[in-house]
Amino acid sequence: MDEIKLIEIKEDIQSDNAVVAEELRDRLRKSRTLMINLMSSPGSGKTSLLLRSIEALKNELNIGVIEADIDSVVDSEKIAETGVRNVQLRTGGFCHLDASMVKKGLDGLDDPALDLIFIENVGNLVCPAEFDTGAIQDAMILSIPEGDDKPLKYPLMFTKANVLIVNKIDYITISDFAMDRLRGYVSRLNTDIEIFEVSCKTGEGVDQWVDWLRQSVSDFKQSPVR
Amino acid sequence: MDEIKLIEIKEDIQSDNAVVAEELRDRLRKSRTLMINLMSSPGSGKTSLLLRSIEALKNELNIGVIEADIDSVVDSEKIAETGVRNVQLRTGGFCHLDASMVKKGLDGLDDPALDLIFIENVGNLVCPAEFDTGAIQDAMILSIPEGDDKPLKYPLMFTKANVLIVNKIDYITISDFAMDRLRGYVSRLNTDIEIFEVSCKTGEGVDQWVDWLRQSVSDFKQSPVR
Repeated sequence: MDEIKLIEIKEDIQSDNAVVAEELRDRLRKSRTLMINLMSSPGSGKTSLLLRSIEALKNELNIGVIEADIDSVVDSEKIAETGVRNVQLRTGGFCHLDASMVKKGLDGLDDPALDLIFIENVGNLVCPAEFDTGAIQDAMILSIPEGDDKPLKYPLMFTKANVLIVNKIDYITISDFAMDRLRGYVSRLNTDIEIFEVSCKTGEGVDQWVDWLRQSVSDFKQSPVR
Repeated sequence: MDEIKLIEIKEDIQSDNAVVAEELRDRLRKSRTLMINLMSSPGSGKTSLLLRSIEALKNELNIGVIEADIDSVVDSEKIAETGVRNVQLRTGGFCHLDASMVKKGLDGLDDPALDLIFIENVGNLVCPAEFDTGAIQDAMILSIPEGDDKPLKYPLMFTKANVLIVNKIDYITISDFAMDRLRGYVSRLNTDIEIFEVSCKTGEGVDQWVDWLRQSVSDFKQSPVR
């Protein structure tokens, strides 16, 4: 296997992807739609956080969801029950979403009046961080049982994210996870990141995250169209 | 982005990889070394399971470890403390190990007298399942907090693995994880898989896993060299 050749292919893909991602962001700026790309490991709570967020905001905001899954429709069935507009992308083995795939999702939602779109990316702490989806914000979840050393091991994800939601804080008493240690590791990679501590199970901390979402949608609506 | 072109590239890489993987297995059969490829999501407990396994077996077996990490040496430092022979591969952003990378690890261990080699793959439930590493057995960990629905969402990993270690069973009482449901989903994909339920924290169930390792090393030593 020629490693140099592989890297070149990767760069070509990335450069095509960057063009499509920028087109998507232009479209979102024009429609004043805040699109947030939600990333995490499998089982960190992406769908649970979406359900909590939709429940809190669906009466005040027009929300859409683009769900990605390698093979199943488990998550989009749960989202559909909330009544918000949603599209399921089956990646067919692909380990991440790129901007072309998200464009198909956005076309599928087909609603320029949406205030807020969540992309639920493939459960993977590696590849999704490498591909610009065209989203306005990149959010990631880390759950307590995964451990506080993850920024050391998956640095790109923690560097790229604008927001970190630390989920399953109800597990913290029976875990050796140290929030200070996590915050220390994260701050070495990313000083601008917003951090929220939540439990999607008990609801603890969800209000602060929802307030941030509400404010971000409002700020984005008022930002100048470039 | 031309999706068909991408798939062709992927097939070329896979076919080169299969050749190297088969060469590695020939080499392992000749040296009678059982190499096990350990895969899971980030934070499921790969390193913890290795530490438990090494602790239990290092006085009776000659063990080596090939550690993969995108960017850090956190895990290999822990393994080094056990005194077993180990090599750290930095994948430099790659989301999986392939056979060529493992070959470098095997060359680095440089010990034909090893009975058992563990590969700790990159924490990722998607990409590592697609690449044959040249290992004799593929083992995966799923931890309780990740949820019992993961076989629905990451089917290739559960299809490819010979062994499934369900870790963090000490979390099961405060979780809605149902072991029967997991076993049901897994059995639809893979009827030959061996399943162990363990807690690397408390040590529960580790003995059964260690017995399986011991027996597998013994069986492999007695199997005919093809």
